[in-house]
Amino acid sequence: MKIALLGFGVVGRGVYDICQTLPGLEVVRILRRKGSPRELPIVTDCFEDIVNDPSVDCVVEAMGGLHPAREYLLACMAAGKQVVTSNKAVLAAFYDELSDAARSAGVAFGCEACVAGGVPFLAALRKAARVSPILGFSGILNGTTNYILSRMVDEGADFGQVLSAAQQLGYAEADPSADVDGLDVQNKAIVTCGIAFGFAPSHGQVPTFGIGSIQGQDVADILSMGRVPKLLATARREGDSLCCTVEPVLVERGSLEAAVPLNNNLASLEAQGIGTLKFYGQGAGALPTGNAVVQDLLDIAQGCKDTPPRTGGALQSDLSLLRARWWLRLSPEAAQRAKEELGAACESVRPRGEESVCLETAELPAQDFYALRSRLLALDPKLFAARFA
Amino acid sequence: MKIALLGFGVVGRGVYDICQTLPGLEVVRILRRKGSPRELPIVTDCFEDIVNDPSVDCVVEAMGGLHPAREYLLACMAAGKQVVTSNKAVLAAFYDELSDAARSAGVAFGCEACVAGGVPFLAALRKAARVSPILGFSGILNGTTNYILSRMVDEGADFGQVLSAAQQLGYAEADPSADVDGLDVQNKAIVTCGIAFGFAPSHGQVPTFGIGSIQGQDVADILSMGRVPKLLATARREGDSLCCTVEPVLVERGSLEAAVPLNNNLASLEAQGIGTLKFYGQGAGALPTGNAVVQDLLDIAQGCKDTPPRTGGALQSDLSLLRARWWLRLSPEAAQRAKEELGAACESVRPRGEESVCLETAELPAQDFYALRSRLLALDPKLFAARFA
Repeated sequence: MKIALLGFGVVGRGVYDICQTLPGLEVVRILRRKGSPRELPIVTDCFEDIVNDPSVDCVVEAMGGLHPAREYLLACMAAGKQVVTSNKAVLAAFYDELSDAARSAGVAFGCEACVAGGVPFLAALRKAARVSPILGFSGILNGTTNYILSRMVDEGADFGQVLSAAQQLGYAEADPSADVDGLDVQNKAIVTCGIAFGFAPSHGQVPTFGIGSIQGQDVADILSMGRVPKLLATARREGDSLCCTVEPVLVERGSLEAAVPLNNNLASLEAQGIGTLKFYGQGAGALPTGNAVVQDLLDIAQGCKDTPPRTGGALQSDLSLLRARWWLRLSPEAAQRAKEELGAACESVRPRGEESVCLETAELPAQDFYALRSRLLALDPKLFAARFA
Repeated sequence: MKIALLGFGVVGRGVYDICQTLPGLEVVRILRRKGSPRELPIVTDCFEDIVNDPSVDCVVEAMGGLHPAREYLLACMAAGKQVVTSNKAVLAAFYDELSDAARSAGVAFGCEACVAGGVPFLAALRKAARVSPILGFSGILNGTTNYILSRMVDEGADFGQVLSAAQQLGYAEADPSADVDGLDVQNKAIVTCGIAFGFAPSHGQVPTFGIGSIQGQDVADILSMGRVPKLLATARREGDSLCCTVEPVLVERGSLEAAVPLNNNLASLEAQGIGTLKFYGQGAGALPTGNAVVQDLLDIAQGCKDTPPRTGGALQSDLSLLRARWWLRLSPEAAQRAKEELGAACESVRPRGEESVCLETAELPAQDFYALRSRLLALDPKLFAARFA
């Protein structure tokens, strides 16, 4: 099978390197930005060289970003090329359009690499869903934030200190906000909902909170409760309702989630009959993510025409499917307001020094807590909140 | 696709129940022993009714045991029927013969359910191996022994006490030796080697030690070292050499393995590029194991003709690929002998009461330790030994 790569960054190079070892997969064209080094003769800066080349069977989009990734994917599908993407952002933003376009064109559209890198989680969801509907999923889906939390837990280090180390190791971007604020996980959660439920919610339907405000002392307090903080995407479907969120969660020490070290991922699915399955591994990096792309390529080379599924009817976002307890660390002023608003649903309050208060809520519907949280954030922009698992 | 079941025990019933919910899979015949209740009109006690019925496309063997399972599988393959088995014992004993027979007959031969029940581990090994050779695997592959060890760890309970509870819950057989002595895991390890490396070792090539001699005080001592005891199958391949063992392993507290509760499984694979992937879930039970069989059936219904792979050349068993430290609890007499034989490789010795001694070895090649272990067993038949992970 003759393959063209759009983009030659970390993932593109990983795909290229793996294909060099597999006789059936030949990379014949690589699109790079104008002015990029042309160390290989197959490099071009002209997309038309690829989309108009009838010898290209399959196009791998590993550029990232929304535009022109969307337009290139649509053009390749329209030209009858099989397509694989590792770009969760474009798929989360245009799930319906892209998956419908692939079906209209009768081409395969692989996206395994969009979620959990080298961990074959989307494939597992598809297989499980053949036998019975997916009830829900959850996961540690971002290696950067897990690296930061993991080192804060193990070393008692502070957030900024570990973030710098992660940046030096190349685990975190110079602008880390997409990871730290949960936006990368939000895109992955949207794509995973699409694969699991045949419905990709909008970004507005997936409340998303990151770990940017967590402090070393928060981690110490959380550990003393027998818990470990992790950034989790969770989703649950009941009938036509869907609840999908991204937020810090206090998992129990001794759980598999708590044991996930450094920049690894752990993704879980739940389905009737099979119960809960969990999948662990490297969620990023050239070879793990490249491997996920290559798995899609091998399936396509064997005649697979899978596209991201769409059940048709839209699911309603219903955050009341999630009821939980939350832990907050906030200013005394914000804590006073929280106590007043929560009333009997305020389960415990404990001052921490002069400037902070730790507060636990009783079980609440998620929408009630998130609304309260945004009011409190106006009083204390540095508050940290996490759900009890 | 029209399906016949051989056997209607836990797995057979699970497959039957799941197929009732899936329009494409129709169970048309069920073989039960003479004298079994015939609650369904499709039940027969005559194998010829199935192998000679041209309307049967696919046969699921869920009888267990070696004979007549082997003969029935071979007869079904020769009759051109696709075949799926959940019977690890027959596949471990006759791997080469059965997989060759399936290829000669040009039929599919699915065996996902033989290892780790509902956890799609064999499928993951096959997929990973498409991209790069499997370097090794390891796993908690027996729910019964993990249930026993898990409750001993959590409750400080003694072996016999927890075994009785497991028997009452149906997790352990009345004769628990296949589980407790590691023989069930040995069969699974052999099958997994077949799928991972294209070579299934003989039982004699897979040193196997169970957990029957572990005492409550052993568990307490192990926990005080920051370790947790688990029964693990591990395998590693280097070139034409293979080292596969089944034995108790002291994993680090805080590892994913240590976090596996009750009757669950966790299986890991390692391959170049992708690194380590781990897969967790229910390793037994009607619906999880039935689900694994049904996944094979759905693949076959889609035209998949996979058979257990065979690379051709035999791998040599080479236990020196495994070097590790071991922990022993044994009688003072046996400990004295161990000290003499180990010499400088005896790292620590600590009496435990009047009757026991705890001893740690330095790093040794596995074959040296296993040879020593069998000499010590003659002096203390109740000794317990476990490898440091």
